[in-house]
Amino acid sequence: MAGNSFGQLFRITTFGESHGAAVGVIVDGCPSNIDVDLEFIQAELDKRRPGQSKITTQRKETDTVQILSGIFEGKTTGTPIAMVIPNEDQRSKDYSHIKDTYRPSHADYTYDVKYGNRDYRGGGRSSARETVARVASGALAKLYLKQLGIEIFAHVSAVGTIDSPNIELTDLNELTEIRESNIVRCADPATAHEMIELIDGIRKAGDTIGGKIACVIRNCPAGLGEPVFDKLHADLGKAMLSINAVHGFEYGSGFLGSEMIGSEHNDIFVANNKGEPRDLKLKTVTNFSGGIQGGISNGMDITFKVAFKPVATIMQNQATVSSSGEAAEVFGKGRHDPCVVPRAVAIVEAMAALVIADHFLRNKAYNG
Amino acid sequence: MAGNSFGQLFRITTFGESHGAAVGVIVDGCPSNIDVDLEFIQAELDKRRPGQSKITTQRKETDTVQILSGIFEGKTTGTPIAMVIPNEDQRSKDYSHIKDTYRPSHADYTYDVKYGNRDYRGGGRSSARETVARVASGALAKLYLKQLGIEIFAHVSAVGTIDSPNIELTDLNELTEIRESNIVRCADPATAHEMIELIDGIRKAGDTIGGKIACVIRNCPAGLGEPVFDKLHADLGKAMLSINAVHGFEYGSGFLGSEMIGSEHNDIFVANNKGEPRDLKLKTVTNFSGGIQGGISNGMDITFKVAFKPVATIMQNQATVSSSGEAAEVFGKGRHDPCVVPRAVAIVEAMAALVIADHFLRNKAYNG
Amino acid sequence: MAGNSFGQLFRITTFGESHGAAVGVIVDGCPSNIDVDLEFIQAELDKRRPGQSKITTQRKETDTVQILSGIFEGKTTGTPIAMVIPNEDQRSKDYSHIKDTYRPSHADYTYDVKYGNRDYRGGGRSSARETVARVASGALAKLYLKQLGIEIFAHVSAVGTIDSPNIELTDLNELTEIRESNIVRCADPATAHEMIELIDGIRKAGDTIGGKIACVIRNCPAGLGEPVFDKLHADLGKAMLSINAVHGFEYGSGFLGSEMIGSEHNDIFVANNKGEPRDLKLKTVTNFSGGIQGGISNGMDITFKVAFKPVATIMQNQATVSSSGEAAEVFGKGRHDPCVVPRAVAIVEAMAALVIADHFLRNKAYNG
Amino acid sequence: MAGNSFGQLFRITTFGESHGAAVGVIVDGCPSNIDVDLEFIQAELDKRRPGQSKITTQRKETDTVQILSGIFEGKTTGTPIAMVIPNEDQRSKDYSHIKDTYRPSHADYTYDVKYGNRDYRGGGRSSARETVARVASGALAKLYLKQLGIEIFAHVSAVGTIDSPNIELTDLNELTEIRESNIVRCADPATAHEMIELIDGIRKAGDTIGGKIACVIRNCPAGLGEPVFDKLHADLGKAMLSINAVHGFEYGSGFLGSEMIGSEHNDIFVANNKGEPRDLKLKTVTNFSGGIQGGISNGMDITFKVAFKPVATIMQNQATVSSSGEAAEVFGKGRHDPCVVPRAVAIVEAMAALVIADHFLRNKAYNG
Repeated sequence: MAGNSFGQLFRITTFGESHGAAVGVIVDGCPSNIDVDLEFIQAELDKRRPGQSKITTQRKETDTVQILSGIFEGKTTGTPIAMVIPNEDQRSKDYSHIKDTYRPSHADYTYDVKYGNRDYRGGGRSSARETVARVASGALAKLYLKQLGIEIFAHVSAVGTIDSPNIELTDLNELTEIRESNIVRCADPATAHEMIELIDGIRKAGDTIGGKIACVIRNCPAGLGEPVFDKLHADLGKAMLSINAVHGFEYGSGFLGSEMIGSEHNDIFVANNKGEPRDLKLKTVTNFSGGIQGGISNGMDITFKVAFKPVATIMQNQATVSSSGEAAEVFGKGRHDPCVVPRAVAIVEAMAALVIADHFLRNKAYNG
Repeated sequence: MAGNSFGQLFRITTFGESHGAAVGVIVDGCPSNIDVDLEFIQAELDKRRPGQSKITTQRKETDTVQILSGIFEGKTTGTPIAMVIPNEDQRSKDYSHIKDTYRPSHADYTYDVKYGNRDYRGGGRSSARETVARVASGALAKLYLKQLGIEIFAHVSAVGTIDSPNIELTDLNELTEIRESNIVRCADPATAHEMIELIDGIRKAGDTIGGKIACVIRNCPAGLGEPVFDKLHADLGKAMLSINAVHGFEYGSGFLGSEMIGSEHNDIFVANNKGEPRDLKLKTVTNFSGGIQGGISNGMDITFKVAFKPVATIMQNQATVSSSGEAAEVFGKGRHDPCVVPRAVAIVEAMAALVIADHFLRNKAYNG
Repeated sequence: MAGNSFGQLFRITTFGESHGAAVGVIVDGCPSNIDVDLEFIQAELDKRRPGQSKITTQRKETDTVQILSGIFEGKTTGTPIAMVIPNEDQRSKDYSHIKDTYRPSHADYTYDVKYGNRDYRGGGRSSARETVARVASGALAKLYLKQLGIEIFAHVSAVGTIDSPNIELTDLNELTEIRESNIVRCADPATAHEMIELIDGIRKAGDTIGGKIACVIRNCPAGLGEPVFDKLHADLGKAMLSINAVHGFEYGSGFLGSEMIGSEHNDIFVANNKGEPRDLKLKTVTNFSGGIQGGISNGMDITFKVAFKPVATIMQNQATVSSSGEAAEVFGKGRHDPCVVPRAVAIVEAMAALVIADHFLRNKAYNG
Repeated sequence: MAGNSFGQLFRITTFGESHGAAVGVIVDGCPSNIDVDLEFIQAELDKRRPGQSKITTQRKETDTVQILSGIFEGKTTGTPIAMVIPNEDQRSKDYSHIKDTYRPSHADYTYDVKYGNRDYRGGGRSSARETVARVASGALAKLYLKQLGIEIFAHVSAVGTIDSPNIELTDLNELTEIRESNIVRCADPATAHEMIELIDGIRKAGDTIGGKIACVIRNCPAGLGEPVFDKLHADLGKAMLSINAVHGFEYGSGFLGSEMIGSEHNDIFVANNKGEPRDLKLKTVTNFSGGIQGGISNGMDITFKVAFKPVATIMQNQATVSSSGEAAEVFGKGRHDPCVVPRAVAIVEAMAALVIADHFLRNKAYNG
C-alpha cells in the first residue's frame, strides 16, 4: 500500500535512495526454470547507466548488479530473486544547498509535507536512480518473455519538437541495432542526428528538454489483459506514468484517435490465411486499436507512446521558497541529464516487460 | 486478480453484464458516519443515463439504484455498501446477429479467445453499461470528498477537432451549472453549440466521433499519492484508461510538456502569504506540474485530460470475419451513442473521486 | 483492506447485515466454462439454513439465492458472479433492547468503538448470517473442484466433551450420507445420538455449548500452497479462524503433535507402486503432516480440526454495561443456536473449497 | 501472489535461501519519523540466532543486519527499509547427500513437485533460516508499537508433555527478564529447568521434540481488526501458522473453549471506574475472548498459543525414497535444533508485532 510494489503475479518491490548504500528489488513470482543470462541483465542496465555519453548525466556508476537469492545452477527456482545495485558515486555534499530549499518542480516540498523527514541528498526516493531496480527486474521479465517468443522494442520518437517520421516496424532486432548505433536512441538515424544536436545545445545553455518514446510489443498472444479495471493498456499506462517525468500516455490511435470518426477508426478483421503474422486466427487491416480490444490483447502489435517533461534540474539559478517559507534561490549545480529520454528507453521497455509477464501469468491462471 | 476491483482502501468491486439481470458494485472501505444523500447519487447516475438527449443512445434505463447494505439510519456504517442497478430495457434479440460474428473494434473476438464462453448480448461485460456501477460508487466517494472540502469538475473539452478554448477555472460550481445547461456538457456555451451540431450530423450519417474530457480536482490536500509505482497521476491515469474507449491520458503540461524546455516548464514556488488558495503554505506561479510533484499532490489544482476514440458501433454495414473464420458482414443496428463524451463526463468525475478517496485514506494511514 | 474479501485469484467479496435487505457475494476469478448446478448450490445453502431442526435457531429463512451475473447458458463466463440472498424473517424489533447495551462476548462494544455507528439489529455484519454468502460462493468453488476431482468432507467431531471416535476416512460420499442422516452432522451415528441429547438439554436450559469440526480434503494435487507466508495450512487456518465463534485451528498432528518426538512424528516416504491413492509418485506411511509439507500439499489427505466456542447469546439474563457506561442487564431473548457446529459444517467445507480453488489457480499460474 | 509478502499497510517481503548469499527483507509501509534503535534490532536477532546455547543448532551465524535504505539521520523516512543478513556458515557440502533423496517430513519432495528446480542445500527457502528476516522486520514493528505503548511477550509454555503452570501476567518486562535468564525461554524457572533436562536428553538420543509458545499482547487499543475475513485473530493465526513447524493455533479459551457452555464462557462487561487497566471505558471480568470480540480488539490482553511439531531432521538414519522413486536412506547428519521453541519465541513475537502494526495502520486509515 505504500506503493513500492508493482504487478500482481510477476511482482516487484523496489527500495533504495539516490544517495543511500544501494538500490535494489525483490522479484516475487518469477516462474522457475528460466535461464538467467547475467550478461543480458547487465547489458540492459548499461543502457540506463549514467555517464554513457555526452548527452547524459556525468554521475559515474557501474551499476553492477548482485543477485542474492532465487537462482540455483543458473536457473530461477521460483523463489524470490533479490537484486542489489550499490551506489558508488554519491557525492552527497552536492546537495547540502537544498537541505532547506525546495527545488522548483522537484518532489522536495511534497515529500516534506508528506513524511516530515526527507532524505534531501539527491531527491532520495524520488530520484530517477530508483529506476535502475526496474531495469534489473525488467530484464528478468524480458528473459521470461523471450522464452515465450514475445519481443519489445522502444525508441526515442521525439525530442522537443523534433519528431521522427513513422518508422516501419519490420524487424525489431534490426531496429534495435540502428537505435543502439546513436546516443539518443532514435531508430531513424537522420532524426537522431538532429536530436543530438538539439540536446547538446540545450545542455550547453544549462537547460533541459522533454521528449517522447514510442514502444511496440510483438508476438503477444491474444487474450492478455483483464476486462474492466485491469485492462492491458490501463496497466501499461500506469506502468509508464509511474516513471519519473512522464506526463502522458497514449496507445493505438491515442489522442489523435479522439479526432477521428468511427468508420475510419474501426479495424476491420480479416482471416489470417497465410499465417502471417504467425499463428493468429484473425488479423486486422489497420491497427488503431493498438493491439488491444476491450482491454485484452488481440495478437496484433501493441503500440503506445510516452511523453516526458523536461528534467527539472537546470544549470541556472531559480527563485524559490525555503522550508521556513522565506524567499530563496536555488543554484544550478549537480550532475543531471539535459534530456531524459535516451536513458529512459530501457526503463520503458522494462516496465512494458513487467506488465506483459504479469498479465501472461494472470491469464495462464484462469485460461491457461 | 480478475480485475473487477479498483482501489486499495476505498475499494470497489463491480459486476454485471449489459443484458443480464443487473449491474452493481460493492464498496468496501467507505468510512463510517458519512451522510448518504440518495438524491445526489441518483442525480449523478442521471448524468450518465442513456436516453437523456438526442445525441445519446436511445436505450431506456431509469438506472434506479438499490442499496442493499452498509447504511444505517442514513449514514454509512463502515461495512460494505452493495448497490444494484437492474437492467430494464435489454432487448437482447437485437444482438442475435452478432452471436457468431466479430464486430470490428469491439471486444467480441478477444473475449472469445480469452474465455471461450462469451455473453454476446450487447458486449456483456465489455459494454459501457458496466460504468453505471462506477458512477454509483463514485457518487459515494464524492460525498466523502465533499465532507473533506475536495471538489471535482470535468467537462467535454473537444469533440473531433472542435476544441473548446481554455476556460478559466474560477468557481467550479458555476462551471458545472454552465456545463449542465447544454447536452454536450462543455463549459463553453459557444463551443457546446458547435459540438452538438457536429455530433448531430455524425449521428445522422450513421457514424460516430471521438472527443476529449478535461478534469480538475480542487482543494486536494498536499501529500496524497505514494512515491514510485502508485504515484497519484499514475493511479488517475490507470483509472481513466480503464474507462471504455479511452486511448490517452495526460496530466499537467501533458504531451505538450514534452516539447518544452526546463526553464519554461519549472513551476516556481512562492510563499502563499494571502492564504489564497486556502491554507497552503506555498503555491506555484505556473502549474505545468498539474498539482502533482514526484507523484504526490502539492495542493494546487490537479488537472488532466482524457482522450476517447469514436464508438465502434456504427449504423453502417462493415466487413468482418465470423467465429469460424469465414468472411462475414456486420449490419449497423442497435441503439448506441454517436459520441460518448457527454455521458462520460460523469464517469471521469466518478473515477477521479474514487482515486482521491483511496489516496486520502492511504495517506491518512501513514501520515494522518 | 476493510477485510470483506477473501482469496487472491478465486476471490470473494461479501456484503450484508443480518437485518438489512440482503446478504450477498461477488465471486471474481471463477474460471469460465464451469457448469453451474443451481440445485447443488441451493442444497449447500440448505445445510447451513436456520430452522432446519430442533437444535438450530428457529429463524425462518429459505435462503434462496439469486444469481445476477457471470453465468450464460448454464456456464460461467469468467466474469464476476454476483449472488444475492434476501433476508426474509428479520424481526428487527427483537433487538431494540440491545440498542444501548453491550451483550457479553458479542461484537456490540468493539463495533461501537471502531465505527461509532452500529447497526444493532441482530449483530449487523458480525452476525453469522454473513456466512450464507460464504456457503453460496463456496458451493461454486466446490463445483470447480469437483471438475478437478478434489473432494471435501467435514463433520462434527465433538460437542462439548463428547468426542467422536476417529472414523475411518474411506469413502467420503458414504460418510457424507451418514453425516446427513443425523441432525448434528456427526459421521458416527452412536456419537451423534449422544451429541443431540446433550445439545437438546443445553437448549432447554437456555444455554449454549461449543464443539469441534474435523475436515479432510482428498485428491488434492501435490504442489498447492506457496512457501513462506501463504502456506496452504496458513491460508486454511485463516479461513477457518475467520468463521464466527472459531477459537482454534490445527492441522495434521496438531496440538498433540507438539508433545511428540521427531522419530515418531516423521512421515516416512514410500513409492506408490500400486497407484493407490491414485497417480501419486510417492505416499507417506503415516500422515502427521496432514497432507502438507513446507506449506505445500504432498498429495495425501489434507486433515484439520476447528474449535468453536459456545454461542454468546443465551436465554438467561446477564449483567453488562450500557453504551453510556452504566450497569445494565441483557435479557435472554431472540432466536439462536444452542450449538453452532451442526450448521457450521457447511461453512467449514465452503471455506476449505475457496482456499483450495484459490491455491489451485495460484499454482497453475506459475507451475501449470 | 507467490506468497513472500505479509501484511497490507505495514508490509514485509522476504527473500533468501538457507545456503545462498544472504537472507533479507523489505519493509514497505513503516511510518516515517520512528527512531531506529539498531542495538534493539540486533538484540532481537540474537534471541533467534543459532548457536546460542547447548540446546540449539551449532550453526555459527552472527546474524548481523545491514540496513540499505529507508533510514535517514536515525529515523525512518517512510520509504522502503531494506535489511540484509548475510549467510556466513553455510557448509553446503553437508547437504550433497540429500540432493536426490527426499528427507521425511521436510519440504524436499513438495518443492521438487512444485518447482522442478530445488535448491537442495539445507532446505533452501523452506529452511527456518528465512525467519531471520521476520525477526529483523518484526523488531522494526516493535519499535513502532513501543512508541504507541503496546507490549508483546511470548514464552515457552510447554516442551513435549511438560507444561508450565499458568504464570501471572503482571509485569511483562519482569517476565521477559525471567524468561531470558534460562536457555529454554520459559517464564517459570522451575519448569524451565525440567524442559532443559528433557531437551538435552532428546538431543543426546539424536531425536527432536515439539512444544508450545504462549503469547500476550498488552495495551492494544480497542478497535483493531477488520470484521469478516481479516479478523484480528485470523490474521494472528495465519501469521503463526506460517512459521516453520507450527501445527496449531488457538486464542483466548482456544480448544478448551469448545468444551464449555455459554453461561461460563461469556465475558461479563464492567465499567472500568478505576482506570485500570489504563484508559479503557469497559473491561471484562473474565477474558475467554482473548481480547478479541467479533474479530476486533476490545482493549483487554490479547492471548494466544502456538503448537510446534518436533523438528524433522533427526540424527538417526531413516528409510525414504529417492527422486527417481527408488528406496533410499537418509543419514542423520547436519546441524539442527533438538527443539525449536526456545529460538521461536523471538519469531512469534516478531510476527505478532507485524500483525498489530499492520492492523493499527489499517484502523487508523478508516477510523483514525
